[in-house]
Amino acid sequence: MPICYITRRERFSAAHKLAKAEWDEEKNYEVFGKCANPNWHGHNYELYVTVKGQTEPSTGFVVDLSDLGDLIKEKVISKIDHKNMNLDVDFMKGKMTSTENIAIAIWEQICDPIKALGAELHKIKLQETENNYVEYYGE
Amino acid sequence: MPICYITRRERFSAAHKLAKAEWDEEKNYEVFGKCANPNWHGHNYELYVTVKGQTEPSTGFVVDLSDLGDLIKEKVISKIDHKNMNLDVDFMKGKMTSTENIAIAIWEQICDPIKALGAELHKIKLQETENNYVEYYGE
Amino acid sequence: MPICYITRRERFSAAHKLAKAEWDEEKNYEVFGKCANPNWHGHNYELYVTVKGQTEPSTGFVVDLSDLGDLIKEKVISKIDHKNMNLDVDFMKGKMTSTENIAIAIWEQICDPIKALGAELHKIKLQETENNYVEYYGE
Amino acid sequence: MPICYITRRERFSAAHKLAKAEWDEEKNYEVFGKCANPNWHGHNYELYVTVKGQTEPSTGFVVDLSDLGDLIKEKVISKIDHKNMNLDVDFMKGKMTSTENIAIAIWEQICDPIKALGAELHKIKLQETENNYVEYYGE
Amino acid sequence: MPICYITRRERFSAAHKLAKAEWDEEKNYEVFGKCANPNWHGHNYELYVTVKGQTEPSTGFVVDLSDLGDLIKEKVISKIDHKNMNLDVDFMKGKMTSTENIAIAIWEQICDPIKALGAELHKIKLQETENNYVEYYGE
Amino acid sequence: MPICYITRRERFSAAHKLAKAEWDEEKNYEVFGKCANPNWHGHNYELYVTVKGQTEPSTGFVVDLSDLGDLIKEKVISKIDHKNMNLDVDFMKGKMTSTENIAIAIWEQICDPIKALGAELHKIKLQETENNYVEYYGE
Repeated sequence: MPICYITRRERFSAAHKLAKAEWDEEKNYEVFGKCANPNWHGHNYELYVTVKGQTEPSTGFVVDLSDLGDLIKEKVISKIDHKNMNLDVDFMKGKMTSTENIAIAIWEQICDPIKALGAELHKIKLQETENNYVEYYGE
Repeated sequence: MPICYITRRERFSAAHKLAKAEWDEEKNYEVFGKCANPNWHGHNYELYVTVKGQTEPSTGFVVDLSDLGDLIKEKVISKIDHKNMNLDVDFMKGKMTSTENIAIAIWEQICDPIKALGAELHKIKLQETENNYVEYYGE
Repeated sequence: MPICYITRRERFSAAHKLAKAEWDEEKNYEVFGKCANPNWHGHNYELYVTVKGQTEPSTGFVVDLSDLGDLIKEKVISKIDHKNMNLDVDFMKGKMTSTENIAIAIWEQICDPIKALGAELHKIKLQETENNYVEYYGE
Repeated sequence: MPICYITRRERFSAAHKLAKAEWDEEKNYEVFGKCANPNWHGHNYELYVTVKGQTEPSTGFVVDLSDLGDLIKEKVISKIDHKNMNLDVDFMKGKMTSTENIAIAIWEQICDPIKALGAELHKIKLQETENNYVEYYGE
Repeated sequence: MPICYITRRERFSAAHKLAKAEWDEEKNYEVFGKCANPNWHGHNYELYVTVKGQTEPSTGFVVDLSDLGDLIKEKVISKIDHKNMNLDVDFMKGKMTSTENIAIAIWEQICDPIKALGAELHKIKLQETENNYVEYYGE
Repeated sequence: MPICYITRRERFSAAHKLAKAEWDEEKNYEVFGKCANPNWHGHNYELYVTVKGQTEPSTGFVVDLSDLGDLIKEKVISKIDHKNMNLDVDFMKGKMTSTENIAIAIWEQICDPIKALGAELHKIKLQETENNYVEYYGE
């Protein structure tokens, strides 16, 4: 059977800051610029989850997209949307909330559950603004 | 001379929450839903400023767009971008940070300065997510 | 209190054709071009509902956007999404399914219910493709 | 019959510069900034033509969109697309090629022909970049 | 000579449903959800065709984009735009019209003809809604 | 440390034409179509620069995005924005200004400087219109 890649977009809006607790405010501003604002800032994130697999002959699907959407909502969106990623999100605890680290953490949240849908997680793409995005392939 | 409307888009990313200090957390969640998250959330806002005026015969401009952009950056973006709108922004002090109230407050910040450019502020459009935006005409 | 206009976008995907029962296929193709295809075609429609009202001092809202979204979903999206607009949709019965007529029919579906939210319906904008959209103000 | 506004988008890519022949290069750079580059620059323009009219009961149309598209292509796009607006376009001769002036000139090109389609030209919106656009209502 | 990938977007609007003739309506709804609506629904599809090749020194082109556009229009768009993909499209006969299967069928339609342009088909990307797309590499 | 790909978008507006000096106008129109217009035309280009690297544990960054943005602005945007690519841009001298050739020349401009940021240039994507883009991986 042919192999396809299918991508589901989900969105979330969250607050964060980039700052190290062991550095003072001046040092944090020096390294992280305006992203170090002590009282936080936030973004509308666009999350693109790409899975890979053979198309199932009976349905023509790699995976049922509403199952994939539900999985992403349960494992990621419900925990991160309208939250503070530094304070409220279990899977970001103790991590810098760079776009890179959020993408990697989302991979870890959904990589195994996607196998249960009969497909393989291929890529996490996380867009922070219209000018910036990160892609992670689990490497 | 003919009258044109010219619009400049600027963008900012900010944190906020919708919650009244005199209400408890339960009441705030009841009224404001997930927007009441105590530790904040945030958005990428798109701000569209529309000004109206006659085109100046020598340049063909209603207003110099780089002057308009500079004005918006000075009066609005520099104060609100990568900030917490409830805590850090002087012109939002003591106000609910609904999209409506932010749009109205931005109007008040730039209405008079735009007159000095020789044009008239016509509309503030503020887009909070791809599904929601507010328009305000100073009425 | 200041008056704001707030817009909620919802989306639906539907099939339709443009053809008059009393005309033969040749005549329908002549008038409606490829939109007359007897076996239907379809679109992803983007629906923008704009309501107008004073901002409520306690919340800073013209209207609660999740209430507005629920109303649109109940009165419009649940009846039209993944349907055939010529055959399946009660409020399009007996009408040509031009973008104009769909926009007018959606206005009639939600104009009164929106009053119950304490606001006034101002505009229906319905986008059929990236190159075409219709606006209706109830006139 | 109800009144609707229907909008057709067309696109063109063109070169131009903003500079007055009677000024030297230094003066032109002072007034027009980088838009004064002597060897030209260019843009992808998005043109939105909005017409207004009653919906025709038989078709449900204000105007046939393919007729409207053909009219815009004949009167505007064929003359301006992949051209130099300062040098090649008859309806821009002797005018500063500001976005305002291009929008006004396009209005003049199509206002009367649109009447022949049984509708009324309502607005020209011309988008020069994702951050800038002009609207003209014939006033 | 360096190797580039060049992508051409084309668009089409079509009706379809996801349902197996040998299943009853209840079973089809159970498996395919609202996509099983017996009277069809439809989408605006965006098709991105990516070809790969060396740049030709004389022109700087991998392939002439207007030739590539013409080929896609002839082999795909003219057969599928404003059609019912289950009923009207020869290359979808007897197949489930999942986005995966449409993408694979489009690959088969244009893979060989693209060789005649001196390039190699690299990827078909087919976007069904703003939240869903499929990529196929001929594997 | 995990490997991420991070992409920065920058934009520029420039004039160009596709024409060979040794061919006459008729021959140039035959090969390059409307892109051969002697008086130039122009586009808004979107440039996506993707770099690859390990995330730095202290910051969670592959590379500091504002450093990457500054580098692209210095090496590319400042030289090409609001310019004529055939006449004004040193790194395009003597080359056909096809999208392919511009992408390749941009790669050469920034490949080595990006190493100094501690990352590796992975891809240049250059979008000329909403329907056309080129990708180059340095091969």
